[in-house]
Amino acid sequence: MRPYELTLTAAADAIRTRQLSPVELTDSVLERIEQVEPHLRAYVTVTAERARRGAREAERDIAAGAYRGPLDGIPMALKDLIDVGGTATSASSRVRADHRAETDSTVAARLTAAGAILLGKTHTHEFAYGLTTPQTRNARVPDRIAGGSSGGSAVAVASGTATFALGTDTGGSIRVPAALNGVVGLKPTYGLVPRHGVTPLSWSLDHVGPITRTVQDAALVLNALAGHDPRDPASLPTPADADYRPADGASLAGLRIGVPRTYYFDHVHPEVEAAVRRAIDRLQDLGARLVDVEIPMARYIRATQWGLMVPEATAYHEGTLRTVPELYQDDVRVLLEAGALMPAVDYLRAQRSRTLMRQEWSRMLQDVDLIAAPAVPATAVKAGQETITWADGTVEGVADAYVRLSSPADITGIPSLSVPVGHDAAGLPIGMQLLGRPLGESVLFRVGHAYEQSRDACGVAHAA
Amino acid sequence: MRPYELTLTAAADAIRTRQLSPVELTDSVLERIEQVEPHLRAYVTVTAERARRGAREAERDIAAGAYRGPLDGIPMALKDLIDVGGTATSASSRVRADHRAETDSTVAARLTAAGAILLGKTHTHEFAYGLTTPQTRNARVPDRIAGGSSGGSAVAVASGTATFALGTDTGGSIRVPAALNGVVGLKPTYGLVPRHGVTPLSWSLDHVGPITRTVQDAALVLNALAGHDPRDPASLPTPADADYRPADGASLAGLRIGVPRTYYFDHVHPEVEAAVRRAIDRLQDLGARLVDVEIPMARYIRATQWGLMVPEATAYHEGTLRTVPELYQDDVRVLLEAGALMPAVDYLRAQRSRTLMRQEWSRMLQDVDLIAAPAVPATAVKAGQETITWADGTVEGVADAYVRLSSPADITGIPSLSVPVGHDAAGLPIGMQLLGRPLGESVLFRVGHAYEQSRDACGVAHAA
Repeated sequence: MRPYELTLTAAADAIRTRQLSPVELTDSVLERIEQVEPHLRAYVTVTAERARRGAREAERDIAAGAYRGPLDGIPMALKDLIDVGGTATSASSRVRADHRAETDSTVAARLTAAGAILLGKTHTHEFAYGLTTPQTRNARVPDRIAGGSSGGSAVAVASGTATFALGTDTGGSIRVPAALNGVVGLKPTYGLVPRHGVTPLSWSLDHVGPITRTVQDAALVLNALAGHDPRDPASLPTPADADYRPADGASLAGLRIGVPRTYYFDHVHPEVEAAVRRAIDRLQDLGARLVDVEIPMARYIRATQWGLMVPEATAYHEGTLRTVPELYQDDVRVLLEAGALMPAVDYLRAQRSRTLMRQEWSRMLQDVDLIAAPAVPATAVKAGQETITWADGTVEGVADAYVRLSSPADITGIPSLSVPVGHDAAGLPIGMQLLGRPLGESVLFRVGHAYEQSRDACGVAHAA
Repeated sequence: MRPYELTLTAAADAIRTRQLSPVELTDSVLERIEQVEPHLRAYVTVTAERARRGAREAERDIAAGAYRGPLDGIPMALKDLIDVGGTATSASSRVRADHRAETDSTVAARLTAAGAILLGKTHTHEFAYGLTTPQTRNARVPDRIAGGSSGGSAVAVASGTATFALGTDTGGSIRVPAALNGVVGLKPTYGLVPRHGVTPLSWSLDHVGPITRTVQDAALVLNALAGHDPRDPASLPTPADADYRPADGASLAGLRIGVPRTYYFDHVHPEVEAAVRRAIDRLQDLGARLVDVEIPMARYIRATQWGLMVPEATAYHEGTLRTVPELYQDDVRVLLEAGALMPAVDYLRAQRSRTLMRQEWSRMLQDVDLIAAPAVPATAVKAGQETITWADGTVEGVADAYVRLSSPADITGIPSLSVPVGHDAAGLPIGMQLLGRPLGESVLFRVGHAYEQSRDACGVAHAA
């Protein structure tokens, strides 16, 4: 196994025990980038020299005995909405042609302090406002979309061009591309990971979180990311010293896992449903008790998600929408312009609906420890495909379909972890979503890790 | 001194020591109601029989040794936005002609559990959406307005027709009528007093709080009101067992009191300014150190207050505004209709401005323990007067003027206590406002109580 193929956990172990140097690892990943990046286009910018310099410093420090922990010397990619001081944050948009961040975002600063090495910035659907990331190709099957909006980050992790990456999730933008590329994605509890220095899409729904190859890897990254920062008004006053790493061999006995009887299995592709139900059965085999649950207020989910997101996005872009509308891509400009027409009372109706939905979900999560469901109702569609036709003849827009199962966790703020659970007949990855109580990330990691341990570990895609 | 003239603290002491029975007190207050209510019209409904029954029960329980604390046997009035099970909550509106509350609001239930006796429900400016309360007369000078929107509650307390009362405050609706009628009003920290069962005006700005004759009285009522209730989504997880009562004879040495150099003394009537500055000097004499402060983001206060309040109010009234618009008073209907036209992006601009304003105020309140300023820039205007003309020729709407100095505490959520500090030449009361840090009610009570002790206690108005 070449170094770029290692999971974060394996690479960290090898670095800690001096079997692998950060320079070897970084060189291997940079070589992999040279090899596959021309086809995949996960990156907006690769800062190879900066990464090599960082790797040499990490190698020297570790050799001198100053080991900083599991992220030390690990090469990572950041979605290009995340500020890194002195470099551009393009948001994959022409609007940001002359942008330059002055200081690090909180998450970039925390990862750097933990020793992680920046490889570069990855593509997002423009300003995170879409679920495709058209610049980037799927890591597994070349004619398929990467998914989005954190498409570049998911493809980099899936294809071995980053050992881990960060994405952002407003309606599903971490979990959708993670599921479509066969990697792990965590949308943490709202407010757990500070968003200071991260370009917003919709501040009441935005989350930052890790995309990794395994559940354990995600826990390692969350350890570095979580913790209060007063510069994000929504940041929770949580202790920063929690250790999210799941123990090996933990039983799932005593855990009650809710299996939605409604909503989450409606208009889901049969192969996706079958794979997710198999995975849920595996959780039962591991000792968990399955409990039927009814998803509350299901018919309000779509209106609530869009009713909150659309005007908040427009509010952020108001100035540039007036001065340089022609620099936006058509799909994003249309959404931003639509947001300007939305009345405040409609937005407030969505806010009230969210409040009620939070209460109802919180009630449902008193009866179960977590919920297991598909992450996305279909696998990755072909580039350019705009709709999905379901078995009953219903036609649904791709964006609507992709956001449908992930948005409840954004609306309610609860944590959601997407874990690969197999492939469809075309070899396209399928993701299962574990939804937990607020700040219940440890439970999700425990279940996800137990599931992973019960099958082969997640490898690197070689399709590209 | 007749029982209806007693402060809550004095009445509670007399009841506790069996010098006064709840029946005597209640009868005295009900007699006072018969005497002055025909002129003042503070009440929507007086439930005299219910009150007499409650007083007899309290008398019996106390005689049997079951004394429940300082509110036991004390007659109170509730603003008619506050639900009491089995009775109407009219909101002083024809829209609510057929209304009937099924259960008690949290505050009504807590006060009843503490032994307080309901006298009746007091007038509000229709649905709390105004600063006049046109149904009610000022307690001190008959041709002047009561102020609002908690005009009935303030007039009842000031005129001796309730020993204490509750109001609600969205832009100043507790403190404005308290100041204009010469009584004490507290707008607590946002989220400290649960609003479950209270008709909203604007849920991100609404507060419930006490109107009393002295600062000590307000602390006694807050003791019963404060504490978490999950049925109010904004309710803070604060401990319910705090004791807010200020100690007698406490020195103000060591306290830093901010005196605004900007905003709070602009367009303020000279007699109001003089009275408030004299009161601030008194605080200095009592040992406090005065520190000049600059009010941050002052020019955004008005737009932020109205930008948040107007669409939230319309969102609540959307249904009835469509079905029975003719039942609203003209002034309220116009505001509600205007709210329907407001774009979501304008509302969001107000939300963002509030977030920044909270941060800036929090920074300012690191340098001082509290801020002292006028509560209202003018005393009570004549009924029907629509504008105020300032010395420089500027003309300002009465509602704008009355809300101007009180709204920053609603926007930022910090506590604000209005304390009477004298009268103008026409005998109209003037209020000083003490603004504190979030959950800093005890500091405000300490300062307000020290101020009150340094002058004659606040009496009952006999003008009516």
